[in-house]
Amino acid sequence: MTVLPDLLAAAERHAARFGAGTLQRPPTRGFVILTCLDARIDPDMIFSLAPGDANVIRNAGGRASEAIRSLAISQELLGTREIVVLHHTDCGLHAFSTDEIRERLAANLGPEAAVAADAMDFLSFTDSDQNLRDDVALLRSSPLLRPETLIAGLIYDVATGRVRRVE
Amino acid sequence: MTVLPDLLAAAERHAARFGAGTLQRPPTRGFVILTCLDARIDPDMIFSLAPGDANVIRNAGGRASEAIRSLAISQELLGTREIVVLHHTDCGLHAFSTDEIRERLAANLGPEAAVAADAMDFLSFTDSDQNLRDDVALLRSSPLLRPETLIAGLIYDVATGRVRRVE
Repeated sequence: MTVLPDLLAAAERHAARFGAGTLQRPPTRGFVILTCLDARIDPDMIFSLAPGDANVIRNAGGRASEAIRSLAISQELLGTREIVVLHHTDCGLHAFSTDEIRERLAANLGPEAAVAADAMDFLSFTDSDQNLRDDVALLRSSPLLRPETLIAGLIYDVATGRVRRVE
Repeated sequence: MTVLPDLLAAAERHAARFGAGTLQRPPTRGFVILTCLDARIDPDMIFSLAPGDANVIRNAGGRASEAIRSLAISQELLGTREIVVLHHTDCGLHAFSTDEIRERLAANLGPEAAVAADAMDFLSFTDSDQNLRDDVALLRSSPLLRPETLIAGLIYDVATGRVRRVE
């Protein structure tokens, strides 16, 4: 089973209603969202965003350390000056430690995976609020980001749809 | 100027219409999209996705090397078995080389940024199709991803809304 035929058919429908692209590269609203890959998080829906409004960076956990390259590019090439970090409840990286993830990979994929997994920090965390504060602090101290950058840290509750500000 | 009050107000409206969250952590349709942070790319709109359907990973360029951790977590913790890599036309990483990005950071942020930027590969590319093929090949050869993973490489045209399959 592959989802690809359905996705390509949907993309054909999208192109048919698209018209001509008028948006430029810099986001219209001058900000960037950093959030998790979790399927329940829909930044457009949560924040009522339209295409072109914002850069969106997503990785497992919405972790800052892995997003520095993208954030610097968003600022220097695309002109954003505000960062919204959106973490969430029931995150897989809160439920599973880096060691547990390494064990799963070794068990499921074998010795070559075990070696590669041992060399990788999967960026799990234990305290959600503290983790978010640490990620915001990391961005505030990064030499690759503009010192005047506005940075907020929010947590999305996947059970209620509510957003809570932590930083 | 900050967008935060508008975003938080939108989030309040989202929570008011949300009801109770019924989605679980694993994506309903069992796949993950890797794409660029570009504001003009709206995976939900292009592929007619609903909340809960897919994991979404986004970084500058939609580059594979930076997404291995997230993809492995998507497979091992969230059960995905198919990857769609979606690059796009008019990408900032095609327009600017890593050296140009380093020069901008040094000019705009000073010597500490210059040192940090020199240590970072900004993952620019010159040939869009070859870059996408290389990224798909990198995923196919990663020891941290399941060997049976279905992987497709697509390019989204921001001027026409069309998706073209490269791999």
